Amino acid sequence: MTLDQLYSQLTIPCEAKLVLAVLDGLGDIATPEQNRTTPLEAAKTPHLDHLSQDAVQGRMDPVAPGIAPGSGPGHIALFGYDPIEHQVGRGVIEALGLGVDLQAGDVAARANFCTLDDNGIVTDRRAGRIKTETCQRLCDQIAQKVKSIEDVEVIIQPGKDHRFVVVFRGPGLGGPLSDADPHREGKPIPTAEPTGGKDTTADKTARIVSQFYQAVLPIIEKEHPANGFLMRGIAHQPSIPTFEERYRLRAASIATYPMYKGLAQLVGMTKLEGSQTIEQQFEQYLQEYNQYDYFFIHFKPTDMSGEDGDFDAKVRAIEEFDAALPTLMRKAPDVLAITGDHSTPCKVKAHSWHPQPVLLSSAYSGTDKLGRFTETTANGGSLGLFEAKYLIRHMQANAKMFDKFGA
Amino acid sequence: MTLDQLYSQLTIPCEAKLVLAVLDGLGDIATPEQNRTTPLEAAKTPHLDHLSQDAVQGRMDPVAPGIAPGSGPGHIALFGYDPIEHQVGRGVIEALGLGVDLQAGDVAARANFCTLDDNGIVTDRRAGRIKTETCQRLCDQIAQKVKSIEDVEVIIQPGKDHRFVVVFRGPGLGGPLSDADPHREGKPIPTAEPTGGKDTTADKTARIVSQFYQAVLPIIEKEHPANGFLMRGIAHQPSIPTFEERYRLRAASIATYPMYKGLAQLVGMTKLEGSQTIEQQFEQYLQEYNQYDYFFIHFKPTDMSGEDGDFDAKVRAIEEFDAALPTLMRKAPDVLAITGDHSTPCKVKAHSWHPQPVLLSSAYSGTDKLGRFTETTANGGSLGLFEAKYLIRHMQANAKMFDKFGA
Repeated sequence: MTLDQLYSQLTIPCEAKLVLAVLDGLGDIATPEQNRTTPLEAAKTPHLDHLSQDAVQGRMDPVAPGIAPGSGPGHIALFGYDPIEHQVGRGVIEALGLGVDLQAGDVAARANFCTLDDNGIVTDRRAGRIKTETCQRLCDQIAQKVKSIEDVEVIIQPGKDHRFVVVFRGPGLGGPLSDADPHREGKPIPTAEPTGGKDTTADKTARIVSQFYQAVLPIIEKEHPANGFLMRGIAHQPSIPTFEERYRLRAASIATYPMYKGLAQLVGMTKLEGSQTIEQQFEQYLQEYNQYDYFFIHFKPTDMSGEDGDFDAKVRAIEEFDAALPTLMRKAPDVLAITGDHSTPCKVKAHSWHPQPVLLSSAYSGTDKLGRFTETTANGGSLGLFEAKYLIRHMQANAKMFDKFGA
Repeated sequence: MTLDQLYSQLTIPCEAKLVLAVLDGLGDIATPEQNRTTPLEAAKTPHLDHLSQDAVQGRMDPVAPGIAPGSGPGHIALFGYDPIEHQVGRGVIEALGLGVDLQAGDVAARANFCTLDDNGIVTDRRAGRIKTETCQRLCDQIAQKVKSIEDVEVIIQPGKDHRFVVVFRGPGLGGPLSDADPHREGKPIPTAEPTGGKDTTADKTARIVSQFYQAVLPIIEKEHPANGFLMRGIAHQPSIPTFEERYRLRAASIATYPMYKGLAQLVGMTKLEGSQTIEQQFEQYLQEYNQYDYFFIHFKPTDMSGEDGDFDAKVRAIEEFDAALPTLMRKAPDVLAITGDHSTPCKVKAHSWHPQPVLLSSAYSGTDKLGRFTETTANGGSLGLFEAKYLIRHMQANAKMFDKFGA
């Protein structure tokens, strides 16, 4: 029996409300440049401090020691799925980020316009970074003329500058394929081919991609500089057991950015739309309180300020989240977890491998008496250092969703 | 995809210098007899204290909870290899310890002289612990007369008292074999036979061992008490992916004892020879700084004093290491890890299972603000308690050797 099977076997229906609040990229490091202080330590967080009075803490490896995850694996782990087993292709992530409503079995690819010479050689992989408006116009033209190939629907979604996304939707598609991208200038566009061994679904996708090229290239051949295009990360949306199947939880996402809504949708959460601020997101939780068992609430500004290396902005983002917390607590969830999907230290200016701090509060959590919630206090918490994929299990346990194991 | 495969896939070339400094047997326990103090706590360590200002800490299980490792598994884990998967035979370890320059595919055995009666029955398994000089003389005699068997070169290396090592070097050898040792007196020497299932390489080794007995016994039959010999731990040197293959790191060892040089050589590190003291070892690092990416620096006295149960000597050993640290820091490595290969508590007078403390410092480590580096401070570090085989992954991450995982 696997551990997952054991958890499933022990799971009993939920009578509690669970909230996972993710401050994206929350974790940070205390460096000499920052006066050996992290944004969480520097921020004034009276409501988090108050919560920590009756909460436990710990730190989580998003994937494994030393590995800095993208948003995909970071969230897949927070949702309780093994992020190495359930890898989400870059095309899928990009499509989710552009708000494409992906369905199980869809194949998605990151694409961008490029410049080809008369012999089909790539002379500029980014087509001079054409303007977003030009990209939109070209995508519209293509979308009008290439609506389907064989029994496969084609969905084109323009992105920023020269970038766009292509989604193929139809029966029997698979992946992954190799990139239709030479990855440097002076070469022709290679054919996308199955990379995962013998697989008729990938073969079909390769055929569709090839026909897509034959259909699209004539449409843009008179354009300059965007008379060609490249495709990368061609992969199908993995089929992942839904939250309800796996945890018996009716789950909803309250996120403001398309990518996080999309990642939540990948595991079957209902997207609750319309909120812009964390205050509004918590309000929306109050309104939907009765409809769901589990709410994933995603807060983006911490990650953005970390990526910018802007310590003060990260402090302000944390304080903004903290200031909104009383709204959430008007209907305090039975189980509340507050954490990041990974660390984005200001010094690193990127996602990092440093374990993110996590706070867990419920009537049954007990308290680690740590006074505040920071990276350093979390080091001393009773949850210890654990893999992020187990957070949901801690939450379920605190929601009294597990029978005793054995007699 | 396995975790190891993921690490490999994410690895990018190294532009940093990494140093692993191992104080052998560093970890200790605070007992009433020791006034509830460990040698690390009792030692004056101004330079370690200074390092800990901008470092993180944790504790490492050398193998798994409760397991006290030998030097082999202890170091194999520090080098990032699973110590259960990559077991190094006792013959190999013994040969390395005696300074035999082992090559991949060599079969090594621990051997010792014994006393046989007229019927070939073992009457003294240690031949009265003959003097080292006698052992050397007998080994010389054997080595002169038995230089090869079939196409296999035979290498004999005398050890202490009645002990020696036999190495077989040639094509198609394998192991392991059962011991040519009854493990008690009153029995004949059993035949060494393959124990790992059907394997023609082990069959060949068994044949060579049998012929080795036939060749050697007549040479020493007139000796008394050393007219026979036993062989144990007959195994081939495992083929382990080298450091460079596995981590893309050009690695060198700066160790003073043959066994640690040999263990480093097992994973493909270059042996840098000549240093006697830790001060000299750090000097050698400075000289070779540009030639390698990764340096393994091994310091033995902490383990010896632990084995002796000599608290004060262990304190002095730690202080000797600390006093030399400024030499290392003249060219501060980008990533520095300081730890043990296991604990050797003075009270236990042997290797133990207690997790060893580890300190990790880099520009991206952040700090746990622990002030000192001891077993107790390490308990509060952000690295938590982890398996020693992941230390290299933490070091690689801090060296910026990993791409982000997923989008």
